[in-house]
Amino acid sequence: MKAIQLGLLGAGTVAGGVVQVLQRNQAEIRRRAGRGIEIAAVAARDVAKARHSLGDSVPIGDDFEALVRRPDIDIVVELIGGTERARSLVLAAIAAGKPVVTANKALLAVHGTEIFEAARERGVAIGFEAAVAGGIPIIKSLREGLSANRIESIAGIINGTTNFILSEMRSKGLDFDVVLKKAQELGYAEADPAFDIEGVDAAHKATIMSAIAFGTPVQFERAHIEGISKLQAADIRYAEQLGYRIKLLGITKRRDDVGGIELRVHPTLIPATRLIANVEGAMNAVLVKGDAVGATLHYGRGAGAEPTASAVIADLVDVTRLITADPEHRVPHLAFQPDALAATQVLPIAQTITAFYLRLTVADEAGVLANLTRILADRRISIDAVLQRPNHEGGADGENQTDLIILTHDTLEGDMDAALALMQALPTVLAPIVKLRKEELA
Amino acid sequence: MKAIQLGLLGAGTVAGGVVQVLQRNQAEIRRRAGRGIEIAAVAARDVAKARHSLGDSVPIGDDFEALVRRPDIDIVVELIGGTERARSLVLAAIAAGKPVVTANKALLAVHGTEIFEAARERGVAIGFEAAVAGGIPIIKSLREGLSANRIESIAGIINGTTNFILSEMRSKGLDFDVVLKKAQELGYAEADPAFDIEGVDAAHKATIMSAIAFGTPVQFERAHIEGISKLQAADIRYAEQLGYRIKLLGITKRRDDVGGIELRVHPTLIPATRLIANVEGAMNAVLVKGDAVGATLHYGRGAGAEPTASAVIADLVDVTRLITADPEHRVPHLAFQPDALAATQVLPIAQTITAFYLRLTVADEAGVLANLTRILADRRISIDAVLQRPNHEGGADGENQTDLIILTHDTLEGDMDAALALMQALPTVLAPIVKLRKEELA
Repeated sequence: MKAIQLGLLGAGTVAGGVVQVLQRNQAEIRRRAGRGIEIAAVAARDVAKARHSLGDSVPIGDDFEALVRRPDIDIVVELIGGTERARSLVLAAIAAGKPVVTANKALLAVHGTEIFEAARERGVAIGFEAAVAGGIPIIKSLREGLSANRIESIAGIINGTTNFILSEMRSKGLDFDVVLKKAQELGYAEADPAFDIEGVDAAHKATIMSAIAFGTPVQFERAHIEGISKLQAADIRYAEQLGYRIKLLGITKRRDDVGGIELRVHPTLIPATRLIANVEGAMNAVLVKGDAVGATLHYGRGAGAEPTASAVIADLVDVTRLITADPEHRVPHLAFQPDALAATQVLPIAQTITAFYLRLTVADEAGVLANLTRILADRRISIDAVLQRPNHEGGADGENQTDLIILTHDTLEGDMDAALALMQALPTVLAPIVKLRKEELA
Repeated sequence: MKAIQLGLLGAGTVAGGVVQVLQRNQAEIRRRAGRGIEIAAVAARDVAKARHSLGDSVPIGDDFEALVRRPDIDIVVELIGGTERARSLVLAAIAAGKPVVTANKALLAVHGTEIFEAARERGVAIGFEAAVAGGIPIIKSLREGLSANRIESIAGIINGTTNFILSEMRSKGLDFDVVLKKAQELGYAEADPAFDIEGVDAAHKATIMSAIAFGTPVQFERAHIEGISKLQAADIRYAEQLGYRIKLLGITKRRDDVGGIELRVHPTLIPATRLIANVEGAMNAVLVKGDAVGATLHYGRGAGAEPTASAVIADLVDVTRLITADPEHRVPHLAFQPDALAATQVLPIAQTITAFYLRLTVADEAGVLANLTRILADRRISIDAVLQRPNHEGGADGENQTDLIILTHDTLEGDMDAALALMQALPTVLAPIVKLRKEELA
């Protein structure tokens, strides 16, 4: 089947991510979607600059209006941002009968009702997973995965810039202005950071989630918005003394008692023991409460070229399945099309690689550790840490034995087992060795 | 449009949850799915017992084989568990052309390849979101939300029983046997706990995720499985001293270097600072790494009547959309059908309810706190905590002023603001009051 042809509007960071991920994972994506997904053309304001950043593999022009109407374009991908030109281009694409995938939260928070209505009338889909929380599939989770629930509330860390700033202010005790400057140097904050630090970006995203959660039109103009620019280091410190952390949260709640909805963005104290209070740096996390499921937390990267591209392309795969009439190309049971399953086999445990925790009960005498580490060294098993502790369970012999804990770096399990057999055979090893596996999950 | 008619196989805990949630949220679900979803009949081994637990609102019989073939049944929901009878009933439903939604991980981990192939040939869908991690929409996230990615690895806490036991062993320093007994008393562990504590249940779920992540048939028979029954309190203690926690993880990894896949379940040391290391009690969490998105974490309740029902019904909504040919009944942009949007409005901030953090710079003299708390009490604003600290920023006057931090319980923001205006007007309040909001997110 012919590959889906995309028209990309914009050639910035996210567009670069989309080009890169689509090219790198084309085979994987085709195995899932049942068709290839290719970029037919890109429209950019500065063609030379776009060519420099996107490379020569995709045709680049500067006529946005023509691109959204080109008959060979199956899906329009809007990545220019802003609300005015994006609005008219998206409406033009819809009018031309083309599905649109967009990462533009401002556009949907402000003009969503108009755009969704136009799309419905024309019978085309609008994908916007990338508009909220970057690579986290939160739109899909809210809209489909949690569809059994009456959603009660959503509270999200949905702006990486402000979470980075708050994390730094807390961990280093610095003032807002100092950290903002650092964030700008690191590229975590824009030269004009107002949109992020005043909470507007978070409010756009909270607005979209609120509409999906409660089945209402988007109501950005009624959102209450406070940013973090006036937050003082003293309050972060006092909050910590009281067992709380301060996060910029986008919150929306059902209020059945007054038949309304809360929609607000502001710095918020939350108990330090909550998982979401421990979301640090530029990461995002969304806490959803539903009446059946209880609390779910959805965590990941909320910005950046490839995480955002991950969401854009997930939408492209969805739309591809939708516009490919063949029922064989619905979501396959095992994610990949049945004729695209691989024969890749699960490895025997001896061929797996992991780090290990070993606990040995050894005689408390000279040379024991040397003998053990020699066995590990011979198999090129690298040691990460050693802990020696008195053994309190040795009974009468307890005085002469000790616990030795060894953490290794990543090791082939077969090598580890061979070494363990030799270690176990040493006369100074007094009990069966405990072997556990260790994963850094970094 | 006529409501979808379900045939429920089984009348246990999860079936009870499905009946309850479908009844309670019928209106909400219809607004999303575009059609009602109703239970036409239930098949149960013990009809009297089933009637007692499910109530009189649904017809209950004991002929499972007849139910899966009844012409008026649109979707079969398999909730009997086990692999043999469930297999033959699911295959019979498929043969009768009926889509199936199941929560049965054992069935799919063992017979998934056969069942998916039969479903594909007959052109019916099999939904199994509830088979992995209960209410967390992890199957949908892996299969659709992260479809742009080459999945690199998955590591999940996917068995609540063992996570509860490990949490208790660590936090209370207890031995495995003691905690297992407690878990059984609390209903977190079965009378015969082998399936959970020996890692078999986690391996079923890891097997399903592995197949979806890497596009292979299910390979349960090749999974390496170790449970927690031999885990000793000493190792949990040593791990903690080294900065690690021990969790039973289901792990699957792509190993391109040898063209294979790792699939293993075992107790695993993970750094205590990782979010997933702080998933306590019976909660589940799945960490997914994709090449584009990086790490995402999906957290929530992995078992229980309503969380599992949440996943079953999400699948029912999906299948309803799929078998309702009308393109208007695809996934709506705002989750709810356009003609079912509500006019519910966002409330003004004064009408929102939240707890507050107040910081006041006050004169260090008698009666100050009494005057402040009187104002709060007059508005029935309840105080949660008070912290008084020397103010170091008062300059020359610093000696005579102090910082007073007040945490309130939930309060209508309008009441808070009215009280704040009075407090701010007191001559003993020496600087603008800092007001922040606080959410327990419990």
